[in-house]
Amino acid sequence: MPVAEILSIGTELLLGQILNTNAHYLAEELANIGIDCFYQVTVGDNPERIKLCWQEALQRSDIVIATGGLGPTADDLTHECLAGLFNVEMDFDALTFDYIQAFFKQRNIPMPESNRKQALRPHGADILPNPYGTAPGIIWTVSPALLKALGIIAPERPRVILTFPGVPGEMKKMWQETAKPFLASSFTKAIVCSWELKHYGIGESALAEKYGHLLNLATPTVAPLAGQGECRLRITAKATSKEEALAIAGPVIEEIKSGSGYLCYGESQDTLESIVGALLTQKQLSLSVAESCTGGLVSKRLTDNPGSSAYVKLNAVTYANVAKIKFLGVQEKTLDQYGAVSSECAAEMAQGIRSVAGADFGLAITGIAGPDGGSQDKPVGLVYFGLADGSGTIVAKRVYPAQLTRSEIRQRAASDALNMVRLLLLDKTVLQNTYTT
Amino acid sequence: MPVAEILSIGTELLLGQILNTNAHYLAEELANIGIDCFYQVTVGDNPERIKLCWQEALQRSDIVIATGGLGPTADDLTHECLAGLFNVEMDFDALTFDYIQAFFKQRNIPMPESNRKQALRPHGADILPNPYGTAPGIIWTVSPALLKALGIIAPERPRVILTFPGVPGEMKKMWQETAKPFLASSFTKAIVCSWELKHYGIGESALAEKYGHLLNLATPTVAPLAGQGECRLRITAKATSKEEALAIAGPVIEEIKSGSGYLCYGESQDTLESIVGALLTQKQLSLSVAESCTGGLVSKRLTDNPGSSAYVKLNAVTYANVAKIKFLGVQEKTLDQYGAVSSECAAEMAQGIRSVAGADFGLAITGIAGPDGGSQDKPVGLVYFGLADGSGTIVAKRVYPAQLTRSEIRQRAASDALNMVRLLLLDKTVLQNTYTT
Repeated sequence: MPVAEILSIGTELLLGQILNTNAHYLAEELANIGIDCFYQVTVGDNPERIKLCWQEALQRSDIVIATGGLGPTADDLTHECLAGLFNVEMDFDALTFDYIQAFFKQRNIPMPESNRKQALRPHGADILPNPYGTAPGIIWTVSPALLKALGIIAPERPRVILTFPGVPGEMKKMWQETAKPFLASSFTKAIVCSWELKHYGIGESALAEKYGHLLNLATPTVAPLAGQGECRLRITAKATSKEEALAIAGPVIEEIKSGSGYLCYGESQDTLESIVGALLTQKQLSLSVAESCTGGLVSKRLTDNPGSSAYVKLNAVTYANVAKIKFLGVQEKTLDQYGAVSSECAAEMAQGIRSVAGADFGLAITGIAGPDGGSQDKPVGLVYFGLADGSGTIVAKRVYPAQLTRSEIRQRAASDALNMVRLLLLDKTVLQNTYTT
Repeated sequence: MPVAEILSIGTELLLGQILNTNAHYLAEELANIGIDCFYQVTVGDNPERIKLCWQEALQRSDIVIATGGLGPTADDLTHECLAGLFNVEMDFDALTFDYIQAFFKQRNIPMPESNRKQALRPHGADILPNPYGTAPGIIWTVSPALLKALGIIAPERPRVILTFPGVPGEMKKMWQETAKPFLASSFTKAIVCSWELKHYGIGESALAEKYGHLLNLATPTVAPLAGQGECRLRITAKATSKEEALAIAGPVIEEIKSGSGYLCYGESQDTLESIVGALLTQKQLSLSVAESCTGGLVSKRLTDNPGSSAYVKLNAVTYANVAKIKFLGVQEKTLDQYGAVSSECAAEMAQGIRSVAGADFGLAITGIAGPDGGSQDKPVGLVYFGLADGSGTIVAKRVYPAQLTRSEIRQRAASDALNMVRLLLLDKTVLQNTYTT
């Protein structure tokens, strides 16, 4: 099996001015098409050190994928260094130059003379088109003879060099449209398909224990991934076709879905808010939210969904007690007796917003996000939820760990609030068993 | 000057399962203390390849900083590989073992036998303490003789090896508390101080042009950094003390602050919402927000600030027309005649929320965040703002570029809304000149 290496070129990476998301993206993509990657290297815009990295990479890896250094300025040196290394000329590519000129013309900008350089490619390399910018990459299959001349020891197979601009948007599209299909067809007889089953309300270790018998399967592979209060199981199958991959992974996916029940809220691109939005749309129901400690975050997440105007009519952030009283109709004596952070207040807030907005459901969140405002009785991390429908109000309580930040507590509380709505829409009994005060 | 190299160890990085934020953090930190870094390398949990990377790094760099591979499991091999490479024993460190045992005892968890391994260090290395977890690192100054035995060519100076666990929180604290002071005192006679001046309402190229004469200074250096609709100027000075650094950078900072005026909204850790919050708190004024297309994002950002209950009382997300009418008192005929996305509606929303909430200021945002809902007259990206105080209402209009995503349009609109409040609190004339319909 061939081995790939990722070479990130750019002084801004060495200075920590930008995060290397390109290497992360390419690493995941390579894994997805079943190509191993043993090294990632980052180097600055220095020709000697760039050449050294190419030399090392070509010695140990079959496929070398570089990003960065394709711009029009003097410190963009990726292709020049490759030509210098292999001692070949830079050829002028007329088609690419026409494209670059058209790119500027379309935007009514005169083409700076410096952009002419982007139409040059090392002799022998093919252009990897960039339909989204002026910097094309190259695809270059380098012969064992040329590698030997470079001093590569025992180059039995040719090496493949791929270059991309450093701009993530351009790199990703060029990868998806040209490079990935090329590599997949050249190097992998198998295709690799992945599915993610997203869980909420169960931790990584509990999930790993529940499906321990699946985690050591050779095919499909099953891996737990945790993050931001959620947990995913990734199921991956190698096969010669999508159908075959699904036939391999299908039974495991079904086993997990049926074993997890409502703990599994969705698949790959789903979010709690997109699932809640889809359920509300499908059932033609509306939801109104009254937020205190989350301060608008639940409303923001619900309206991240395009088309959310189908079910979002009116939400409120009632931070002050007077706003809770005046706008939601929370009883003054409730606040006096139990305080704003209480199940009683959460229930009245939920009923209030439902009634004010004329919505099918009213959701309320009130708690202490910190870092200040906690007490022995009501510590930072204590949050109450209320969820009202036509038949009554369910209240719930969560105490998030004290070491979480204000931002994390708010995110967790928003996720629990959305998860409550999801469960209400799916099965009220499950909601009641999952969330209690 | 010594040169550093960052070595990231972990198969999860090569598989693209996690983003390498550690290398980014360390790169920025090294730059801040004036130590050059020429290479970053990432390798998996494979002993042969880990050793190869150490060998290469020790050949070309004076300081090698590794993260990852210090856990208790069999695939955590960083220290074992180093001991193997230099052909030294692993010493048992009794003090570290006591600490690890105490760590578990304090949490009432029996110590798994595997954690014993974390008390081992290569002979000759010092422990780099980890007060936040069970994985200590090492600080190891390796002599030229030992390097020569490893095959390093012409090792005139000793090399310094530093290792850290891969958990970002632990790594960062160990870096700040022990490693950074050690490196700064050992290798840099100078300290490096940076200031960032954050700008809103001016693009990167316009800012670079305005301060072109400063961008080529040798000391302090001035660099523009762009991102998320904002622009920063970073001013960096090397000196022997903080006072001296400030004396060097001070005149440039003052020149930029005075040249930028209200375009510069704050420094390093400031955000638009933190500045607005500080101004409102200081002036003891309150702000209420009525959001349509931003769906709660402005409210969420305002309440990201701890202590925001001082000025946030009641905010509303009025997505539906009926909510705008019923709750904010927007005139039905305004919506009929001009539509919800109009300066007229924005003005009435601002006045309405101000009056309903009894706040000093009312802020409103209404627009089309897309991807659907646009028309020739009112394209995706069109947003109107209203800002009401006791003396009247200012309305503004922005048309964000069509290629922005829904999320980007919402972020930009929220930032402009917050910037309007900032300018109103600072100078109403500047607000009126900056934002018009």
